Amino acid sequence: MSTKGRLLLVPAPLDFGCASTTPLQDVLPQGTLVAAAQLGHWVCENAKSARAYLKRIDALVPLAKPLQQLDIQELPHAVHKKGDHRGEFDARTLLGPILAGHDLGLLSEAGMPAIADPGSSLVRAAHDMGVVVVPLVGPVSLLLALAASGLNGQNFAFVGYLPQDASERQARLRQLENTALSSGQSQIFIETP
Amino acid sequence: MSTKGRLLLVPAPLDFGCASTTPLQDVLPQGTLVAAAQLGHWVCENAKSARAYLKRIDALVPLAKPLQQLDIQELPHAVHKKGDHRGEFDARTLLGPILAGHDLGLLSEAGMPAIADPGSSLVRAAHDMGVVVVPLVGPVSLLLALAASGLNGQNFAFVGYLPQDASERQARLRQLENTALSSGQSQIFIETP
Repeated sequence: MSTKGRLLLVPAPLDFGCASTTPLQDVLPQGTLVAAAQLGHWVCENAKSARAYLKRIDALVPLAKPLQQLDIQELPHAVHKKGDHRGEFDARTLLGPILAGHDLGLLSEAGMPAIADPGSSLVRAAHDMGVVVVPLVGPVSLLLALAASGLNGQNFAFVGYLPQDASERQARLRQLENTALSSGQSQIFIETP
Repeated sequence: MSTKGRLLLVPAPLDFGCASTTPLQDVLPQGTLVAAAQLGHWVCENAKSARAYLKRIDALVPLAKPLQQLDIQELPHAVHKKGDHRGEFDARTLLGPILAGHDLGLLSEAGMPAIADPGSSLVRAAHDMGVVVVPLVGPVSLLLALAASGLNGQNFAFVGYLPQDASERQARLRQLENTALSSGQSQIFIETP
C-alpha cells in the first residue's frame, strides 16, 4: 500500500492578481475550495500571489494550517518564461512533500494549471513516480470564450501566443486562417495586454 | 435599452445520466447553481435528462419555478447526431423566450454546452440577434483530462470522434500522430463506450 500523497491540480480564478475580484464561490465549486483549504504543501508560479489567493479561500473555507505555515515552492523562472512542456525541466525535485506522504497542490497564475500555463512538468514527474493526479474543477478562460463565441467547439485548437515580430505574426495568422478554412478547426490564441 | 433576455451556457456534471453521481457542489460553483435555479426557460438535448439534472440542482438551490412549469425545448435530433457547427440548423426559432425578455439556459448532455457537444448554433443565433451570452463555470472533461495527463497544454487540439471503420480509423490515428510529432501539438479525441 502506498503512503504517498497525491498531486491536486487547483484552478484559480481569472482575476488572480486583478484589483477588482469576482466572488470565488461564483467560479469555484465548494469541492475545489474544500480540497484546496486542506493542503499544506504547494507548488506555484509566484508565492506572493499564491498566498493572496489562499487568503481569499480562507475567507470562505478556513485553511487547515495558518497561511504562514504553508510550504510553498515556486516553479523556476525559466519554466514561467519558456513553458515546461518540452521536457527540459525535471520537476521530480518538487515532489518531496508527496514522497513524505502529503498531498501537494499545483497552482498556476490563473485558470487551470498545465493548460495554457506551466505545470505539465510536475504532472509528468508525478506520473513517473506513480503518484495519483487529481484535477479539480474551475474556470478555464479559453473554453469559456470558445463556448460563448459560437465557433466550432467540436474541433478546435489552442495554439498559445502569436509571434511578436510583425511579419512573423502576419504569416502565423495567415497559416492559422488557412488551417481553419481548410479543416473547419477553430483556432484559439492568447494575447497579453 | 434592451429588454431582451440573455443566453446562459449552463455546464452539467460528467455523470449526467449515470447511476451513481458526484455531489453537484463538488463540480459546480455556487454561482452556477444559483444562476441555473433562476431560469424558467431552457434549450437542451433531452428534456428528460434536463429535468433530472434540474431536480438535483433544486435539492441544493430551490428552483425559482416548479419543475413542471419550466419551459424546456429540445434541439432537433439531426443536431444531436451531426452536430450543429456547420451552420445547417437555424436556431433562431429557439430564442423566443429571450425576445420575450426571459433569460434562457442552454444545457448539453454533459459538460460545457457547445464544447464537444451541440449548442453552437444557438450561440451564433444569439450573437446574430444581439443577445448577451454568458458562459458559466463547470467541468469540461477534455480539459481536466489534458491537465492531468502531463501532455502539452500550451498547444493542443480537440478533434472529436475517430472514424468507426477500422482502416479509416487507423489512417486518422497515423495522421494525428504525425501532427503531434511534427508540431508538438497534443491531439485529443473522444470515444463512447
